[in-house]
Amino acid sequence: MSVTAPKGFKASGVAAGLKTSGNLDVALLLNDGPDATAAGVFTANRVKAAPVLWSQQVLKGRAVRAVVLNAGGANACTGPAGFQDTHRTAEHVAAKLGGMGPGQVAVCSTGLIGERLPMANLLSGVDSAVRKLERTGGDDAALAIMTTDTRPKTTVVEGDGWTVGGMAKGAGMLAPAMATMLCVITTDASAGGDALHEALTQACRVTFDRLDSDGCMSTNDTVLLLASGASGVEPTQEELTEAVTKACHDLAQQLLDDAEGHTKKITIEVVGAADEQDAVEVARSIARNNLVKCALFGNDPNWGRILAAVGTTSAQFESDELNVAINGVWVCRGGAAAEDRSKVDLSGENISIVVDLNAGKQTATVWTNDLSHAYVHENSAYSS
Amino acid sequence: MSVTAPKGFKASGVAAGLKTSGNLDVALLLNDGPDATAAGVFTANRVKAAPVLWSQQVLKGRAVRAVVLNAGGANACTGPAGFQDTHRTAEHVAAKLGGMGPGQVAVCSTGLIGERLPMANLLSGVDSAVRKLERTGGDDAALAIMTTDTRPKTTVVEGDGWTVGGMAKGAGMLAPAMATMLCVITTDASAGGDALHEALTQACRVTFDRLDSDGCMSTNDTVLLLASGASGVEPTQEELTEAVTKACHDLAQQLLDDAEGHTKKITIEVVGAADEQDAVEVARSIARNNLVKCALFGNDPNWGRILAAVGTTSAQFESDELNVAINGVWVCRGGAAAEDRSKVDLSGENISIVVDLNAGKQTATVWTNDLSHAYVHENSAYSS
Repeated sequence: MSVTAPKGFKASGVAAGLKTSGNLDVALLLNDGPDATAAGVFTANRVKAAPVLWSQQVLKGRAVRAVVLNAGGANACTGPAGFQDTHRTAEHVAAKLGGMGPGQVAVCSTGLIGERLPMANLLSGVDSAVRKLERTGGDDAALAIMTTDTRPKTTVVEGDGWTVGGMAKGAGMLAPAMATMLCVITTDASAGGDALHEALTQACRVTFDRLDSDGCMSTNDTVLLLASGASGVEPTQEELTEAVTKACHDLAQQLLDDAEGHTKKITIEVVGAADEQDAVEVARSIARNNLVKCALFGNDPNWGRILAAVGTTSAQFESDELNVAINGVWVCRGGAAAEDRSKVDLSGENISIVVDLNAGKQTATVWTNDLSHAYVHENSAYSS
Repeated sequence: MSVTAPKGFKASGVAAGLKTSGNLDVALLLNDGPDATAAGVFTANRVKAAPVLWSQQVLKGRAVRAVVLNAGGANACTGPAGFQDTHRTAEHVAAKLGGMGPGQVAVCSTGLIGERLPMANLLSGVDSAVRKLERTGGDDAALAIMTTDTRPKTTVVEGDGWTVGGMAKGAGMLAPAMATMLCVITTDASAGGDALHEALTQACRVTFDRLDSDGCMSTNDTVLLLASGASGVEPTQEELTEAVTKACHDLAQQLLDDAEGHTKKITIEVVGAADEQDAVEVARSIARNNLVKCALFGNDPNWGRILAAVGTTSAQFESDELNVAINGVWVCRGGAAAEDRSKVDLSGENISIVVDLNAGKQTATVWTNDLSHAYVHENSAYSS
C-alpha cells in the first residue's frame, strides 16, 4: 500500500517513455486533506538538481498538496533550462489537479545526471497519472520511481488510529547526507509543519544518514513527509517521531538490501566513543574503506584494514586501546591480535563489526555493503 | 642502480623466508659517509606500525647510518611485543655493522597488518644482508621490498657533480598523507639535516601526497632521505629540493603505473581554485569517488558523477560556474552539458580530467586509477 496506506492520499504510477525499458517512470501523489502539512530534507551535496532546488523552496511553506516524481533522468546539472523544466512540471500538475498552486507541488527526479528531461513525454505522463490517481495507487508509484533498484521499497507503520506509509528508491550513489535518493512518507495523523520537520530530521539522522553503501552522495536526494490529518488523530511528538523513524529505518534497510552489486550487508557499530560524532566518523571511515569492503567480499576477516581506517579519523582514541569484533569474535584487543581470526565465520550475508574505542560511552551504527565485481560491473556500464 | 647510484652507499637484498614465495624480502642500506644526515616523513595514520614509531624517534636526531627494510609483514597492530621486535632488529643491525648505535638505524616493514614477524628468520636475513652489502646492491634492495608490486621502482636524478637515487614500493593502500608506502632516497650531496628535511617535505607535498590510488592510508608509510656527502658537492637548497622532487615524482608515477588492478591512469587537474587547499580537496574528492572510477573503467565520460563529487567538498565555487574537460573535450560548461560526450576518446590508458572552479587562480594535480574487477579480485584475496 506504500504511500496510500494512510487515509487522505491517492497515488498513481504510469509509463511515460522516460525509461527506455518502457517500465513505469512517472509517479504522482495527491494529498486530499483535510490538512496539507509537510516537511522535507534534501541532499547536502552543493551541486543540487533542479527539482531539489525547487522542492526546497516549496517546503519552506510547510504545505504540499502533491508530489510528482520521475525516474529516467535526474534533471541535475542542466542549468537554468533544467530548472524551468521543473517549474513547468509543477505548474502543469497544479493546473491539472486544480485547487492548488505550483508552490504546493514538490518535484523529485532520478536517473542520469547532465541531460535534459524529454518534457513532452513527462507532461503527457503527468496527464495519465492524474487520470489514474486512486486510493490504492501507492504500489504503482513505488514501482515508477525505481532506477537500478531490483524491487520497490515500501513501508507501513500503524499508530493508534493513524498510519504512516512510505516509499523509497535507491541502489547506488548511496551515502546520503540528510537524506537518501528519493523517499516519500505519508501519514493521516494530524500534525503541524514543525512537528513533521522535527520527526523527519530526527528520523533521518539515525536511519538514512547512517547508510553509506558506496560513499557517493547524490545530487537529488530528497525525503518528504506529508500529513493529511484524515485520521483525525493528533499523536504526541514522541509518537510521531517514533513512527516516522520506524518507517525510515525500514526503508533504509530495504535500500541496503538492494544496493548495487552487494553480496554482504555490513553493520558497523562503534561503541565506547567520547561522543556520537566520533562514533559516526569512525564507523563511516570503515564503511568507505575499499580495502575493508573488498576483504569482506572475499570472506577475509582482515581486522588490520579496519584499524588502518580507524586511524585516519580525528576521533578520540588511543591506538593501543582499540578492540575489534567481527561476527562476535574479538580478533583485536588493545590494538593487537587477540582471538584467532580463523574462528570468524563470514559465509553468511550479514556481517557485524564492532569497534570499541575505549574513550567514552557513546555509540553509533552505520550500515554498508561489500565492494564486489558486480558493483564495478554495474557502475562501469550505467550510462552506456 | 637505485639507492646505490650516489657515492657513499652500499645495499643488498636477501631472501629470509618472510615471503611464502621465497623471493627476496629483506633489504639493507648502509651510508658509508662521510656524512650521515637524514630526513624522514611518515604516515599521518594515527594507527602507526612499530617500525614507524621507531624510525620517527631515530629521525629526530637527523642522523641515519643504516636502513633495514622487510616485506612479508607490516609489524603494525602488534602491540608492545611488536615494538620490541623492531628495537631488536635495529640493535642487531647496529651490532653486525659496527660503528653505529641502534639509534642510527631506521626500520621499515610492509605486508599484512596484525601479525608478529618471524624474528629468527628476520635476524638471520639481516646477517646475510650484511655479508652481501655492495656498491651495486641497490637493485636487489628494491626487489626485496616489493609486496603486491609487479616490478621494482627505482630512480636516479643527476645533479652537477652529485646524484640522487631512490627506491620505493607500493601498489595498494595508496593514499599517503605525508608519505607513501616505503621509499628510500639517497644522495651523495653534502647537506645538513634541516636542508634535507626542507627538500623532502616540499617534494612529498607535490608528489606522494598527490597520489591517491584507492583512498586507503597505510599504517606503515615512510619516506627517508639519506645524504652521504661523498660527492663533496654542496648544492643550494633550491637545487636539492628540485632534484629530490624529481626523484619523488618519478617514483610516485611508477607507483601509479603499478597500482593494484588498474587499467587507467587518471590525472585530475583542478584549476581556477581560490587556494591550493581547495584545489587539492576537489581533486581528491574525485579521485576517491568509486562511481567516477568505475565509469572510467567502463570508458564512460560520465561528467555528472564528477560534478556530484565536487559538490561534496567545502571548496569555494558556484555550481553553475563549473567547467569540466575529459581528455581535452569540455563536456561541461557553466555546470551543464556542453560539448558532446561522444567526442571523448577514453580508449587509451591515460585519462586527463580538468575541473575549472572559476573561483581564483590556484591549481593542483592529483593522480589516481580506475576501479576495476582486478582491484576487487586482488584485494578480496590478499591475506588468504
